[in-house]
Amino acid sequence: MSKYWSDVVHKLTPYIPGEQPKGNLSLKLNTNENPYGPSQKVLDSIAVASNDQLRLYPDPESDLLKSTISNYYNIPTNSIFVGNGSDEILAFIFQGFFKNKLPILFPDITYSFYPAYCSLYDIKYTRMPLDEEFNIDLEDYLIPNGGIIFPNPNAPTGIPKNLVDIENLVKINQDSVVVIDEAYVDFGTESAVELVNQYKNLVITQSFSKSRSLAGMRLGCAFGNEDLIEALNRIKNSFNSYPIDRLAQVAGIEAIKDENYFNETGQKIIQARIFLEKELLLMGFETLPSGANFIFTRHRSKDAVMIFKKLRESGVIVRHFNKPERISQYLRITIGTQDEMREFISILKIIM
Amino acid sequence: MSKYWSDVVHKLTPYIPGEQPKGNLSLKLNTNENPYGPSQKVLDSIAVASNDQLRLYPDPESDLLKSTISNYYNIPTNSIFVGNGSDEILAFIFQGFFKNKLPILFPDITYSFYPAYCSLYDIKYTRMPLDEEFNIDLEDYLIPNGGIIFPNPNAPTGIPKNLVDIENLVKINQDSVVVIDEAYVDFGTESAVELVNQYKNLVITQSFSKSRSLAGMRLGCAFGNEDLIEALNRIKNSFNSYPIDRLAQVAGIEAIKDENYFNETGQKIIQARIFLEKELLLMGFETLPSGANFIFTRHRSKDAVMIFKKLRESGVIVRHFNKPERISQYLRITIGTQDEMREFISILKIIM
Repeated sequence: MSKYWSDVVHKLTPYIPGEQPKGNLSLKLNTNENPYGPSQKVLDSIAVASNDQLRLYPDPESDLLKSTISNYYNIPTNSIFVGNGSDEILAFIFQGFFKNKLPILFPDITYSFYPAYCSLYDIKYTRMPLDEEFNIDLEDYLIPNGGIIFPNPNAPTGIPKNLVDIENLVKINQDSVVVIDEAYVDFGTESAVELVNQYKNLVITQSFSKSRSLAGMRLGCAFGNEDLIEALNRIKNSFNSYPIDRLAQVAGIEAIKDENYFNETGQKIIQARIFLEKELLLMGFETLPSGANFIFTRHRSKDAVMIFKKLRESGVIVRHFNKPERISQYLRITIGTQDEMREFISILKIIM
Repeated sequence: MSKYWSDVVHKLTPYIPGEQPKGNLSLKLNTNENPYGPSQKVLDSIAVASNDQLRLYPDPESDLLKSTISNYYNIPTNSIFVGNGSDEILAFIFQGFFKNKLPILFPDITYSFYPAYCSLYDIKYTRMPLDEEFNIDLEDYLIPNGGIIFPNPNAPTGIPKNLVDIENLVKINQDSVVVIDEAYVDFGTESAVELVNQYKNLVITQSFSKSRSLAGMRLGCAFGNEDLIEALNRIKNSFNSYPIDRLAQVAGIEAIKDENYFNETGQKIIQARIFLEKELLLMGFETLPSGANFIFTRHRSKDAVMIFKKLRESGVIVRHFNKPERISQYLRITIGTQDEMREFISILKIIM
């Protein structure tokens, strides 16, 4: 606390990311990273670019990266924005589209960074309760609002919405921007990217941290009508001209290009998720339907905190959320390789 | 323009960075990059860290990088902040300390990103005219204000202030934060870093882009009283938990550790600057005294825009600022190697 702080700093409630433990763990299943490293082509491109040229600024517009994404998704480059992780892009979105008279709407159980952005930019919000089965009921969102945002699939539940429901919302909600946060979309959830060419009020964000195995390189992208992307560019160019370093740009390009590796690793993770869900069911767990690289699960009788602690003592870290009360008996478990999931189940059998 | 933009977006006047030309140039002297690449130890550390682990998030706190900086400057780690380039840190500083009732003060001729931050965060400011010799007169700043910021050495003039004058300002101006932007300090200007342990209202920012040859990796740091650094951490953790990627963190650590390379390359640049200044003097140029890796110079009779254009036609890019009128006859020239400066002079002799 200091008299030199702006008012906004006093009111901030910063986001608390999942722990990045520095010691050795046998299984790190708490922050939804990909169990497979980046494509060899990504590593090769970093090796090539890591030279004398690092003395020079990167391309401030990341044009080559944008044109690679453009080719892949068949979206024009002026409908694409890239940022230092999708978290940076979300911050720009909150500042650029959500600072309105009416409150924005997001689920009561969702990515906990959303309220942190609201406190940073003094944005009003209303938390919309998930239904009894932890689904987002989009009917609830058809009220006057300053914007709508939710992850698809939702986090930490993992439950996906289908494209028809999303398009319906975007079509009806013409007075404010709808943002679909697709950080986990590549693990079996339908993407809404194809809709950005049709609607002027839709923004999609995606991450290179999960399905493209690049959490360590900080890269995300967004898709939207060119007017919306222009707003993000204006903010970015009033904030930091060069947010994406040279190595992250080449890494992102090769990660998009190596479609085979992306598809193979994605399929393996989905298979490992199916395996884990089955095994957990046999052990008395109830798991929410997941379209993500994690599951959200509770045991019918055993306490979540007890399981969390015993796992931790055995060198396994998963994620537990204290709040709200309604999810305090759930654990979020990142999907690893099939071998890791087998190991996880055998440790779980020992401790329970 | 779109009805979906927040009010702030309509009012933005984004910063325009120096051109990053994509074609081949014989001499790129427009954005103050270092002519020497990063230390071999930096490149080696990137090669080691560029592996499977890039699938994992980086340390959100950059603790190893901070402790390396802490050892080097003898400043406690809780007085150190690191960011995605010093531009990102400056943005956090404007939001965290400068959003006050009174206007902040900065020179009328200075880093043109400052007014862009003010428009982004709705901060009032007053531009304080440089004196007749383009010096910052710190006496002028002893008026009620919401904060003070200037680069030392100033940009684009290159003129340094001495430590005694800066300490005097910080001592008198106890009601708001004084920020010294030391992006170019390592080329012969006195740093004020040692003062942060004594004053509660001082923040210093530095960059890895110039003296540490890492413009391509996006890294900056700030020093200040722990209460001020806490404000920056709160903002950062409400904006983007993981701003600095794994490779930038290891690159920064090795760049700090390789003190010999840092000193050698810095000395060579200072020598090349002295050489360039002498040669330009013989050709009829008047150059402002520089403590930076660039000079700001005008010809006694020849037009700056004409020289700029002819240089460009010969494959040489320097920087010219149209505004304000008072500097429209000046060119800002980045210092390269001695050989590059020799080549520059011979091209200049041909075109003039």
